[in-house]
Amino acid sequence: MTSPAKFKKDKEIIAEYDTQVKEIRAQLTEQMKCLDQQCELRVQLLQDLQDFFRKKAEIEMDYSRNLEKLAERFLAKTRSTKDQQFKKDQNVLSPVNCWNLLLNQVKRESRDHTTLSDIYLNNIIPRFVQVSEDSGRLFKKSKEVGQQLQDDLMKVLNELYSVMKTYHMYNADSISAQSKLKEAEKQEEKQIGKSVKQEDRQAPRSPDSTSNVRIEEKHVRRSSVKKIEKMKEKQAKYTENKLKAIKARNEYLLAEATNASVFKYYIHDLSDLIDQCCDLGYHASLNRALRTFLSAELNLEQSKHEGLDAIENAVENLDATSDKQRLMEMYNNVFCPPMKFEFQPHMGDMASQLCAQQPVQSELVQRCQQLQSRLSTLKIENEEVKKTMEATLQTIQDIVTVEDFDVSDCFQYSNSMESVKSTVSETFMSKPSIAKRRANQQETEQFYFTVRLSGRQ
Amino acid sequence: MTSPAKFKKDKEIIAEYDTQVKEIRAQLTEQMKCLDQQCELRVQLLQDLQDFFRKKAEIEMDYSRNLEKLAERFLAKTRSTKDQQFKKDQNVLSPVNCWNLLLNQVKRESRDHTTLSDIYLNNIIPRFVQVSEDSGRLFKKSKEVGQQLQDDLMKVLNELYSVMKTYHMYNADSISAQSKLKEAEKQEEKQIGKSVKQEDRQAPRSPDSTSNVRIEEKHVRRSSVKKIEKMKEKQAKYTENKLKAIKARNEYLLAEATNASVFKYYIHDLSDLIDQCCDLGYHASLNRALRTFLSAELNLEQSKHEGLDAIENAVENLDATSDKQRLMEMYNNVFCPPMKFEFQPHMGDMASQLCAQQPVQSELVQRCQQLQSRLSTLKIENEEVKKTMEATLQTIQDIVTVEDFDVSDCFQYSNSMESVKSTVSETFMSKPSIAKRRANQQETEQFYFTVRLSGRQ
Repeated sequence: MTSPAKFKKDKEIIAEYDTQVKEIRAQLTEQMKCLDQQCELRVQLLQDLQDFFRKKAEIEMDYSRNLEKLAERFLAKTRSTKDQQFKKDQNVLSPVNCWNLLLNQVKRESRDHTTLSDIYLNNIIPRFVQVSEDSGRLFKKSKEVGQQLQDDLMKVLNELYSVMKTYHMYNADSISAQSKLKEAEKQEEKQIGKSVKQEDRQAPRSPDSTSNVRIEEKHVRRSSVKKIEKMKEKQAKYTENKLKAIKARNEYLLAEATNASVFKYYIHDLSDLIDQCCDLGYHASLNRALRTFLSAELNLEQSKHEGLDAIENAVENLDATSDKQRLMEMYNNVFCPPMKFEFQPHMGDMASQLCAQQPVQSELVQRCQQLQSRLSTLKIENEEVKKTMEATLQTIQDIVTVEDFDVSDCFQYSNSMESVKSTVSETFMSKPSIAKRRANQQETEQFYFTVRLSGRQ
Repeated sequence: MTSPAKFKKDKEIIAEYDTQVKEIRAQLTEQMKCLDQQCELRVQLLQDLQDFFRKKAEIEMDYSRNLEKLAERFLAKTRSTKDQQFKKDQNVLSPVNCWNLLLNQVKRESRDHTTLSDIYLNNIIPRFVQVSEDSGRLFKKSKEVGQQLQDDLMKVLNELYSVMKTYHMYNADSISAQSKLKEAEKQEEKQIGKSVKQEDRQAPRSPDSTSNVRIEEKHVRRSSVKKIEKMKEKQAKYTENKLKAIKARNEYLLAEATNASVFKYYIHDLSDLIDQCCDLGYHASLNRALRTFLSAELNLEQSKHEGLDAIENAVENLDATSDKQRLMEMYNNVFCPPMKFEFQPHMGDMASQLCAQQPVQSELVQRCQQLQSRLSTLKIENEEVKKTMEATLQTIQDIVTVEDFDVSDCFQYSNSMESVKSTVSETFMSKPSIAKRRANQQETEQFYFTVRLSGRQ
């Protein structure tokens, strides 16, 4: 049994309950605030996304226009050239082909960035506008639902308060009725004890006192009936209060189901509420808007890559030998060898063969020997020149085909963004190895021409 | 034997030769002009490439700066927010994560386009400058070599001209000497015939005429010696001229080797000349410069793609459920359920269980039956509500997760560039299907909330 000192007083219990309900009410307010805040953040994020894509659309359009201008500047130059055929002819040359593809690429990129800008403005931004509208509408409705749920919860809590108070009241009444009954019973016991003593005292008295006793008995019996009635009344009152208290307590105990309501609200309803704010399309629609962005960017990338592939192909086909061939075909009349010089007999001179009879024979033989000797000397010399030239050419080829074009390093940034510029600037021209290579190239080239001129006989 | 009518006269032959040589000389000039022109075109192309990349570097830098500004505009907003912790907290939410990655991507692209611009200016353009220098130098040297080769060729042609003329002259002399010799021989034959007739006439004469005959014979013999000497002289002259003509003809015939020189020039030297102009590094260096461009562009592409991959990953992770979880963890104190409401006994009331004895028993039993009946009704109702809500949610999910984000079509341009804009603008918002879908979505949403509120008991 709990000691009376540990009993909470009514007021204490009510105060505790009040505090707990106040806390819950504050929490419910905070929950709404939190959802409000999330909604505001969402509205802000969607506004930021719209502003972002609007500004980026401008930037892309700007970029596109600049690229267009750049391509047009050089394409107009081509178009304005008087000799259209001449320009067309040049297109077969591999460097000109590369140049044309470079300009094409710029035009393609210009077009693609216009498309990108257009997709931002006419597809992605409207999606965010939609998501924003949907989100606002959903939030409003969810808040209504939430308010209803909170009202329901508060109603349940108030009911709990009410049944608890009723229980306390009825229990107090019951206790009071019980104590009154007990008091009356105590009084009754006292009274009964008194009259028994009186009777004991009267018993040794004379018989002539019997009439007095009877009057007294009559009086006592009458008051006893009254007392019994009163006692019964008190007992009924107590029983009634006791029953009321039991019912109220039962009611209170049954109201423990409030916990289930609270649990339901906190575990299910709140979760559903956030789901409604979050889930009825917000994430999915945002997903689709961002996937549209990704689709646009990936298509732009693919288109750009196709163009770069074409350029790469053209660069691979940069070929001096076929260009020479094309040039000589293009200017066939300038490069075609003249007619062979035929022997023109003088005045029907019938001899069109070398005359090797005496007396010119010996002279011819001598000359032939001289020529043969000169020829073999030249052959040896030429072989030397050829070897030297080939080696020299190879050296030049080795210098000019060194694979120094990978700039991946420039895109591997160190953590600090500031260091980007210096890294790139240093990569190519300022390297001592480059200067050395160039000097070497020019020296070799000079040597090649010296040999070339000396070996031209 | 050719008939004399078909003999070409000296002057004709010389004139023909002159024409042929003139044509060759003109061709040689044209060849130099053609190489000049190719050199000019090359210089122009390299200048255009430099201008192109200089301008494109500006455009890329501009683009980069605009992207940087765009990113900074929103990042600054984040930084300026007073409650840093609050902003940090929000980052765990999946839409905020997407937004941060979008801004990161813009910063990354800004940085990459700066790098690109820098590579254009400090690597690619200097390469073109180098190629231009090298090309000019090589062309100058090649032209010198070409001039020498052409001079050599003209010298050979002049020599041919000279030996042909010599042959013609000597042959003419030979013919002339031969005809003179023949004339003399004819005269000689005539003279011999006359003196034989005279002798025949003199034979029937008297012997006294013998002395006259002797005188005459003496005279004839003297003049005959003279004639023979003259004849011999003429024969010698003829033989000498004939030999000279043969030698000259041999010389001329040998000079047919000129054709080999012409052939060598046209087939080998010219080809070498163009090779020297074209090949000693021009194509290879151009190749390297353009490969540097390709390397830069492909690195930019890869970097951009990595960023897009990160965004795609974040978009895939857009998840309402985990966001709800994170939100509830973040605001744990707002969303945690309150303490359970415990039964508070009044004044040490020991009964904390339902009292189910008479007289409340029958009432409780009745109430229990009522509750059970209500519960089963609610269960059925709830089941209905649940089914309806699930179906409605599914409908909304179907609407909001429709895969309408592929914009590949926008990048498939028809041949005319003009039609791009209209195609893109029509794709998304103006479609009747979209309006229909949205109406459907809102209707379903409305229905969902009606059911939600009706089913909240």
